[in-house]
Amino acid sequence: TGTMAQQVALRCWAGRTGDATVALHPLAHPELHEQGALAAVSGLRTVHPTSAPRMPSAQEVRDHPEPFGTLMLELPLRDAGFALPTWDELEATVAAARERDAVVHLDGARLWECGPHFGRGLEEIAGLADSVYVSFYKSLDGLSGAALAGPSALVEEARVWRHRYGGQLFQQYPAALSALIGLDRELPRLPSYVAHAKVVAGAMAEGFAAAGVPWFRVNPEPPHTHQFQVWLPYGAGVLDEASLRQAEETGVTLFRSWSEGAPGAAGLPPGVSVTEVTVAGAGLEWSAEDVREAVAGFVELLPA
Amino acid sequence: TGTMAQQVALRCWAGRTGDATVALHPLAHPELHEQGALAAVSGLRTVHPTSAPRMPSAQEVRDHPEPFGTLMLELPLRDAGFALPTWDELEATVAAARERDAVVHLDGARLWECGPHFGRGLEEIAGLADSVYVSFYKSLDGLSGAALAGPSALVEEARVWRHRYGGQLFQQYPAALSALIGLDRELPRLPSYVAHAKVVAGAMAEGFAAAGVPWFRVNPEPPHTHQFQVWLPYGAGVLDEASLRQAEETGVTLFRSWSEGAPGAAGLPPGVSVTEVTVAGAGLEWSAEDVREAVAGFVELLPA
Repeated sequence: TGTMAQQVALRCWAGRTGDATVALHPLAHPELHEQGALAAVSGLRTVHPTSAPRMPSAQEVRDHPEPFGTLMLELPLRDAGFALPTWDELEATVAAARERDAVVHLDGARLWECGPHFGRGLEEIAGLADSVYVSFYKSLDGLSGAALAGPSALVEEARVWRHRYGGQLFQQYPAALSALIGLDRELPRLPSYVAHAKVVAGAMAEGFAAAGVPWFRVNPEPPHTHQFQVWLPYGAGVLDEASLRQAEETGVTLFRSWSEGAPGAAGLPPGVSVTEVTVAGAGLEWSAEDVREAVAGFVELLPA
Repeated sequence: TGTMAQQVALRCWAGRTGDATVALHPLAHPELHEQGALAAVSGLRTVHPTSAPRMPSAQEVRDHPEPFGTLMLELPLRDAGFALPTWDELEATVAAARERDAVVHLDGARLWECGPHFGRGLEEIAGLADSVYVSFYKSLDGLSGAALAGPSALVEEARVWRHRYGGQLFQQYPAALSALIGLDRELPRLPSYVAHAKVVAGAMAEGFAAAGVPWFRVNPEPPHTHQFQVWLPYGAGVLDEASLRQAEETGVTLFRSWSEGAPGAAGLPPGVSVTEVTVAGAGLEWSAEDVREAVAGFVELLPA
């Protein structure tokens, strides 16, 4: 799994750098979604060069007051709206970590869809880092599983830790095959999803503005990948109810579930909710006009 | 300091319960504002029975899947808007912890102002817990410092740890004297601040509604203590600029500094900011009409 692959990688790097401190974003997946596993299981400690909802800048990495052995970057940063830096910012941040003798590990669960925003190929993006984790079951649509790439000595050591962590699954061919199919089938289509997400996000913003919703946010606009956030000033229950009624009454599903407040963190501010929108195969069939109409229909189902 | 007093208390309890796990809120002060000190310095681990912006319920404490030696409750929970439970909820949550053989420690940095909401005296509120930390320099307006109260055996042990942590300050009488003055001078006035905060918060909400701000939140409304949050859908820079101009041009200071997004956490949602309002001595002089007028003047300074 990704949870295991990244702990193994970070633990191996901690041994090699002599520093068990990992610099990462407070919105990064291990901080928000893994129950404190880095500290509880792997003896690692985390520090945060920034809490602004974007990748740490080169300056923030350079100026961070504590030493760290590894800088871990989540590309895109999901809980900040699947946000990416520019290519120049990414290069500069990586260089700043190297100046501090830190290694750079990429949380690349969603790395597959980063190419269009950077204007670079996957090899060049991954090549910036010392190690990269990728997921098989997000954009690639595989069954499960993850892979870790890095120098061969690191990968050899990672095999040992994988066994210790309990990750030596017997017969993994369904996961491997479904990931390989994803490489064939989904990977080439991702750029079209990324391009169409800009159309969908723009049409959603137009739809909310036209419907007179008092405040909303499509974040980022335009999206950096094929996924983005939508924020609305209503409780999650009200929005889920509207989504469900829209699906039942019209057969149109515009949004999946809503969460109150910041994803993964406590529900702040009160009365504001967020959802994540993914534009994949089926989304290509929606024109901007379809999206605007669906938004209008959705807003009509909200209480005045 | 409070940071030290609470680590000492939690560490002593960990030794006595045999469990170094502390259950607390992800918005609690040690999680947001102390650089991971519980783990990095004191060998403690934290778990979160809830991330909803309120105290964990009795049910959440009862059902939490991991064992913990101590339940730490911040009263009021500052980063959720200085929020308090009801007295019955507080009693039930404490009882649920005791059923699990956990001790209960109160982060009472702002305990002084909780009496009116609970309708109970300080002794009765503090008496619910096994140990309580209080701050000298928040509502009491002292210079610095903190106190820890608990069973005498715990307090004896805490002295030893205070020395080890480096907290044996030589000559603390200015801090002690200023805190004693606060007990005399500020403590009796706190109920009037708490009462007037309801007037101020209500008038602010009326002012924002009248001024046609697209979305806002006064949280909680009415406030539980003499402090509360105000959320507005603008960037922090724009709001700070308006606060400064209002002060310069009219001599009225309605708000102090604004932060983008959730306090302490990453700035989410984008384009929403929060500030904290404290109603103390000088605030008693403001009528509801004064507040409404000041809000109208503030909103006029915001970009259209």
